[in-house]
Amino acid sequence: MIILGIDPGLRTTGFGVIHKQGGKLRYIASGTIKSGEGDLPTRLKVILDGVAEVARVYQPECAAIEQVFVNVNPQSTLLLGQARGAAICALVSAELSVAEYSPTQVKQAVVGTGRAVKAQVQDMVARLLSLPGLPGTDAADALGVAICHAHSRETLTLIAGAGAGSGAASGPLAGLRMRRGRLVG
Amino acid sequence: MIILGIDPGLRTTGFGVIHKQGGKLRYIASGTIKSGEGDLPTRLKVILDGVAEVARVYQPECAAIEQVFVNVNPQSTLLLGQARGAAICALVSAELSVAEYSPTQVKQAVVGTGRAVKAQVQDMVARLLSLPGLPGTDAADALGVAICHAHSRETLTLIAGAGAGSGAASGPLAGLRMRRGRLVG
Repeated sequence: MIILGIDPGLRTTGFGVIHKQGGKLRYIASGTIKSGEGDLPTRLKVILDGVAEVARVYQPECAAIEQVFVNVNPQSTLLLGQARGAAICALVSAELSVAEYSPTQVKQAVVGTGRAVKAQVQDMVARLLSLPGLPGTDAADALGVAICHAHSRETLTLIAGAGAGSGAASGPLAGLRMRRGRLVG
Repeated sequence: MIILGIDPGLRTTGFGVIHKQGGKLRYIASGTIKSGEGDLPTRLKVILDGVAEVARVYQPECAAIEQVFVNVNPQSTLLLGQARGAAICALVSAELSVAEYSPTQVKQAVVGTGRAVKAQVQDMVARLLSLPGLPGTDAADALGVAICHAHSRETLTLIAGAGAGSGAASGPLAGLRMRRGRLVG
């Protein structure tokens, strides 16, 4: 299963694509979409087209997007909301299901604690996906969202369901939990 | 020139389509897009597809969207931002230029005062477009945005430019101002 993770932002939108096969995760791609210096509609179009292009190129089977912090500045919150709306529009236009995770859930899934700092997320993402170096923070967050979704109950249920359908064992996955991005019994 | 006005909202997005020929405005259509009760990505897709459908059916040459109030509740602001982002995405995907106006600018253009209440906007929109009855508040706001854009400097400049190109007089429009939705010298 190919999973696309998105870390939305008005200036920079991070994306990360991973492949999940059984319990194994494999890195496919990651990067950022920069919305440039245009007016708001122009910048939203850059995000919309950019995320659509990532979906077209890597053909993910599902997507996950990070929930955003409500900023102390309401105007910034509004701008961020519009950017996130554009990214979600690109995903749903590509007929992808879109799961949402809070930053705390992502940190919990990747590092093992919801209070991890960005550097820890980068480090653990690099380890979990056997990357040769550290990804940038936006790409790391996006890969983190994808990893979080890979280990979510919803995805596990899907995989278990597919396994049952093809005659393989299913039940055991239901009892598993996540720690440091790994499944544990 | 056919102008599409949008009054964005997460629950209800209003749209209004008018035709501007010379100094005359003519009503074409208006209505609302209801996003329903699904999860956020589903609701954003309803908005995206709905606005895209309106653009496809009425083939406007430009669009205008109302700026939104920053809500006292940051979570509501974030949701509204995402809905507005979806509407803008539909407009830019239809290759439309998107102008933005504040509620005060719309009220000023339609009623003649930035402190008008919703009922006054409904009433003046109905008069300016010779409607047989009052439009709903969301549709009235959307038609108001379209009217505001019809009388904006940008649109006047475009029309003046087109006039100059076809040999007609141009200069005079530059000196005009707006009052109660009408051009005044």
